[in-house]
Amino acid sequence: MTKTHKAVVLQRKGEIKIEDRPIPEIEDPHYVKLQIKKTGICGSDIHYYLTGAIGDFVLEQPMVLGHESSGIVVEVGEKVTRVKVGDRVAIEPGVPSRYSDATKAGRYNLCPKMAFAATPPYDGTLVKYYLAPEDFVVKLPDHVSLEEGALVEPLSVGVHANKLAKVAYNQKVVVFGAGPVGLLTGSVAKAFGAFKVVYVDISPEKLKLSSSFGGTGVVNSSEAKSDDQLVAEIEKALEGDQPEVVFDCSGAEICIRSGIKVCKSGGTYVQVGTGKEDVNFPIAAIGPKELKVLGCFRYAFGDYRDAVHLISCGDVDVKPLVTHRFKFSEAVDAYNFNAKSGANAIKTIIDGPE
Amino acid sequence: MTKTHKAVVLQRKGEIKIEDRPIPEIEDPHYVKLQIKKTGICGSDIHYYLTGAIGDFVLEQPMVLGHESSGIVVEVGEKVTRVKVGDRVAIEPGVPSRYSDATKAGRYNLCPKMAFAATPPYDGTLVKYYLAPEDFVVKLPDHVSLEEGALVEPLSVGVHANKLAKVAYNQKVVVFGAGPVGLLTGSVAKAFGAFKVVYVDISPEKLKLSSSFGGTGVVNSSEAKSDDQLVAEIEKALEGDQPEVVFDCSGAEICIRSGIKVCKSGGTYVQVGTGKEDVNFPIAAIGPKELKVLGCFRYAFGDYRDAVHLISCGDVDVKPLVTHRFKFSEAVDAYNFNAKSGANAIKTIIDGPE
Amino acid sequence: MTKTHKAVVLQRKGEIKIEDRPIPEIEDPHYVKLQIKKTGICGSDIHYYLTGAIGDFVLEQPMVLGHESSGIVVEVGEKVTRVKVGDRVAIEPGVPSRYSDATKAGRYNLCPKMAFAATPPYDGTLVKYYLAPEDFVVKLPDHVSLEEGALVEPLSVGVHANKLAKVAYNQKVVVFGAGPVGLLTGSVAKAFGAFKVVYVDISPEKLKLSSSFGGTGVVNSSEAKSDDQLVAEIEKALEGDQPEVVFDCSGAEICIRSGIKVCKSGGTYVQVGTGKEDVNFPIAAIGPKELKVLGCFRYAFGDYRDAVHLISCGDVDVKPLVTHRFKFSEAVDAYNFNAKSGANAIKTIIDGPE
Amino acid sequence: MTKTHKAVVLQRKGEIKIEDRPIPEIEDPHYVKLQIKKTGICGSDIHYYLTGAIGDFVLEQPMVLGHESSGIVVEVGEKVTRVKVGDRVAIEPGVPSRYSDATKAGRYNLCPKMAFAATPPYDGTLVKYYLAPEDFVVKLPDHVSLEEGALVEPLSVGVHANKLAKVAYNQKVVVFGAGPVGLLTGSVAKAFGAFKVVYVDISPEKLKLSSSFGGTGVVNSSEAKSDDQLVAEIEKALEGDQPEVVFDCSGAEICIRSGIKVCKSGGTYVQVGTGKEDVNFPIAAIGPKELKVLGCFRYAFGDYRDAVHLISCGDVDVKPLVTHRFKFSEAVDAYNFNAKSGANAIKTIIDGPE
Repeated sequence: MTKTHKAVVLQRKGEIKIEDRPIPEIEDPHYVKLQIKKTGICGSDIHYYLTGAIGDFVLEQPMVLGHESSGIVVEVGEKVTRVKVGDRVAIEPGVPSRYSDATKAGRYNLCPKMAFAATPPYDGTLVKYYLAPEDFVVKLPDHVSLEEGALVEPLSVGVHANKLAKVAYNQKVVVFGAGPVGLLTGSVAKAFGAFKVVYVDISPEKLKLSSSFGGTGVVNSSEAKSDDQLVAEIEKALEGDQPEVVFDCSGAEICIRSGIKVCKSGGTYVQVGTGKEDVNFPIAAIGPKELKVLGCFRYAFGDYRDAVHLISCGDVDVKPLVTHRFKFSEAVDAYNFNAKSGANAIKTIIDGPE
Repeated sequence: MTKTHKAVVLQRKGEIKIEDRPIPEIEDPHYVKLQIKKTGICGSDIHYYLTGAIGDFVLEQPMVLGHESSGIVVEVGEKVTRVKVGDRVAIEPGVPSRYSDATKAGRYNLCPKMAFAATPPYDGTLVKYYLAPEDFVVKLPDHVSLEEGALVEPLSVGVHANKLAKVAYNQKVVVFGAGPVGLLTGSVAKAFGAFKVVYVDISPEKLKLSSSFGGTGVVNSSEAKSDDQLVAEIEKALEGDQPEVVFDCSGAEICIRSGIKVCKSGGTYVQVGTGKEDVNFPIAAIGPKELKVLGCFRYAFGDYRDAVHLISCGDVDVKPLVTHRFKFSEAVDAYNFNAKSGANAIKTIIDGPE
Repeated sequence: MTKTHKAVVLQRKGEIKIEDRPIPEIEDPHYVKLQIKKTGICGSDIHYYLTGAIGDFVLEQPMVLGHESSGIVVEVGEKVTRVKVGDRVAIEPGVPSRYSDATKAGRYNLCPKMAFAATPPYDGTLVKYYLAPEDFVVKLPDHVSLEEGALVEPLSVGVHANKLAKVAYNQKVVVFGAGPVGLLTGSVAKAFGAFKVVYVDISPEKLKLSSSFGGTGVVNSSEAKSDDQLVAEIEKALEGDQPEVVFDCSGAEICIRSGIKVCKSGGTYVQVGTGKEDVNFPIAAIGPKELKVLGCFRYAFGDYRDAVHLISCGDVDVKPLVTHRFKFSEAVDAYNFNAKSGANAIKTIIDGPE
Repeated sequence: MTKTHKAVVLQRKGEIKIEDRPIPEIEDPHYVKLQIKKTGICGSDIHYYLTGAIGDFVLEQPMVLGHESSGIVVEVGEKVTRVKVGDRVAIEPGVPSRYSDATKAGRYNLCPKMAFAATPPYDGTLVKYYLAPEDFVVKLPDHVSLEEGALVEPLSVGVHANKLAKVAYNQKVVVFGAGPVGLLTGSVAKAFGAFKVVYVDISPEKLKLSSSFGGTGVVNSSEAKSDDQLVAEIEKALEGDQPEVVFDCSGAEICIRSGIKVCKSGGTYVQVGTGKEDVNFPIAAIGPKELKVLGCFRYAFGDYRDAVHLISCGDVDVKPLVTHRFKFSEAVDAYNFNAKSGANAIKTIIDGPE
């Protein structure tokens, strides 16, 4: 008789239920079984909850939610050598095909056969037991908590964005959007040696928080009447410097426009966040500056490992992000709470089931 | 008494006159004096003629036109070692400050103090005698004509775009816009080893010409009703492949949108041409593909030299581009002709004054 | 009862025998079964034959020889989609672990768990039936012969070396060693756009052959009395130019020394061939020129595909390399013949068993 | 009547004298006149003193010594905008030709016409007044001393080496040679995000000092009997890790050999220091690891600026390097002292003349 465990399942747009699901068993000898301990709620979860889709990914059948998780190894496949039972780990939620061109070219985040937790049709991590390949979990040092481990996921997004941008020592950086991903992206920039990190957001609370995340200056964009005005305010916050690197973690049109315009000649703009499909984009501004405008998607080889290292060394402190905590049995409340409190710079953590 | 020569001068928006100007004399020992022999008309010349401005560059006083020129060295400064009197040369029309950060970083095309021929406030090359630093002229081999030498300028734009895009052997490339810059950009892609080069344009004549410029397929975009439809037609012309590199040499919104959408995951899109300041841009499409969207501006170190080499070796044949020729005394007619015949894939050459 | 087929087995240093081995059966659903048709003899095979070891790889048990092979797909695993029964393919002989860091970083040739045909302890391809993952075979177009398919292996070495070196249009290249790998490396350089390719070797026959492999000049190094003299002769063959890229495919000390010395300031030297463990190396010469000296190992993602394309397009003609052919039953003779005729620029092909 | 000032002049091998030299006057409007305040003694100065040559650079006429200097701007050319009279600056001692290919390609350190202070035939900085182009001096913040300013020169060597090596966050680094350049190179690696920096030297004093320069481990190589033994000790100091980046700042053969052997597969080895012309080099070790072995020469655009920033921010503390100070009038003693105390990890500073 198959054993079951509890799972937080998005039944359809707008409806989440906790239900019984069969406990998965290790079949691939390179896999480990994890007991999930902490899971963060991500904006994308809420987006699926409220709309049933993100871009081409459409919910067509009930799906377990959750992809920002940490856990404990409770069983290992027979070929596993990297971790052992009892290890506390951060779990990289997307597993690519090992056979795709993208994977073999070193960019597995672009693998067209990626199986990503809580992205349709793949089930997520809000269960008691979860299977993952041994090379997609990263052991946490003893002094790093499981809650911090759950935050490795958004931190890895920041690591990846900074690597794409090749953020280097003594650079000036602007981050639009001081939500979790923005704050972590800016933190990584600082850890990578950036001299100034200016955050731009409409929320005074988030901007206040940003000084704990490497911020050296802030701009409140809520009253900017034009991109040019916002550019001027950012340059002021940079004391006249222009940023070699701009991260847009907002997806907002005025931020995208200002980001392109404020970016230094020869610089790099990275589109980390997503908002509307199309924006009114200042295309003529990228030519004479030979800007690099980079798409950015999740994380790739090494990012998770570096993210754990950033926390472990104290170069990034993810703890101030966590503002709310729920028990597993309260998961539906947790989602409803997040759906309401919206885009605040807060992170909600759901405990694993007992 | 200062000697004078004839110059083709844009007096103000809409008015070109041939007038007498003083002949410049060598002051800097690294400069050479050139007798201008052939000058191509560029779209930007026409743009200044018709509107008096391109972006931030505004005509505020009369300016000599012309920047696509070849000539013969008639005098050399005392420190000149690279060329000698009698050498036939292609003339790189933009001379940067030797002291700027951009120049010393190896990107002199981004120098904020660039003095570029026929870009306000700098006079152009449509004169009898013109001064240039010895390292901004490239000697033409005997078998390369002065007319071909005048076409080194737009060819260098193509060289630069291909280097930015890192076009490599066996890649598939799409070029939007089969005007001179588009055709030369595609030609360079082929010479750099591209396997397929598909041209997209609205003009059947230009598309027909494209097979002489490395084209392996064409798409007539004049009847495309949407970017998605255009994408489908391009993929068909590529026999199901997706391009690793897309060059937009059109500046048209539907091309920009289709170019972003058709570009292969992990690929590179280069904005070579310019049109409107702003376009409705499919920003959400660059993330999941981690596209590189690159601004591209003129040419930098080595591009002119490589362009002369491409012609010299026969890897690019620029001659089919030249469809009309005018004498220097007919220069005003030449501009009026080009202003009318518009964006056709033709190149008009004006002879130097006798 | 397990079926058997014939295999060419290196029993121990100095002894090769044809013996019966069990025919392998597909277990992994991503694998295909191939009937081997053509196999080239490589210098490394001869090295194992004569010495029983290459570097750290030591023959400790009998091993099937052969790794430069083409064949026909005779069976496919249930998940195979890339090829089908009847396809003629080139076989990439090294299969990395899909779980190693190197593989996921996009450099599977550096995978420490690489299973490489005919490198101890892994059996090679000189059998009737051979198993390979579907993504490590590349389909040959109809107009490419199976014999050409066997030469994809050494050609891929050249492709890889050229990609490492970033050989670009209009560059000058020097290749030391005009054996199969050298000639193919130079050919690829030419196909990648190199302007001049100068070959250096001690054999007049090989140097003569080099004009069919992209060579634009030759230097016979057999009488060079010093590296400086050899450098002078190479510069003469380059008409005074200095090479941006040098490939050493010889492993000979005088070549390595001359290669470092002749390489242009800012240039790249690639160590493709191997000879002695240690050489007397002009280390002081790499500093003031900021040379890049690159180790080079086999081939990685995309190289095999590009190699097939080079042959298919006619950019490289591998056929002149094949000078001797043997039947499978004569394989021992083939090895003995090659062991005697040594380092000549010839390639011996052994047919698959009937 | 031309005014004169005192200069420390290397008359010939083995003889230094202080003598009167004419004070230079600004001719180029982009130049500034500096009053030299502090000058460090570099190993290369001592080398010229003792042997009269370094490689191809041979002393053929008396030459003013000194190239690690800071000073105060006392006069500016008419086009100078970057600094003003009274500014305290670090002086970049090598000024390239603005016309060379290397300079325009962004690598002015490779310019064949480089005029480098105290490299024959160019006079150095050990004078009262010195001329430099405005873009080859970097202003010191108020809290950075002129003595620290003199140490910007060796620090820039470290900055350049780290940029060449692309040292990145979370990497492991080994530095051979804990002299000034080694210690500063390791410090920069730490500031660029390296996780572990292990120093290797024969001097216990230098190794002790290294913990102030980012060192996380040390290996005393004085008793290593072989490169393999040294490799084993380094791996132990790295707790089993292998370094992604190795800097050899020693030039010693055992260090070079160990550095190549210990470097991680896919890693980068940078030859910063120089010793003998030729070494017995483990060439066969670079292939299977695809090592990058990089020559490294002085510093290029941006390095001086970043070095000042490193000091200004406190990311590198150069002050512990300074162990001896001499007055200008004692300069000959200073050189003799350094010639005797040899390769110790100390820096001697000579004051400017009053």
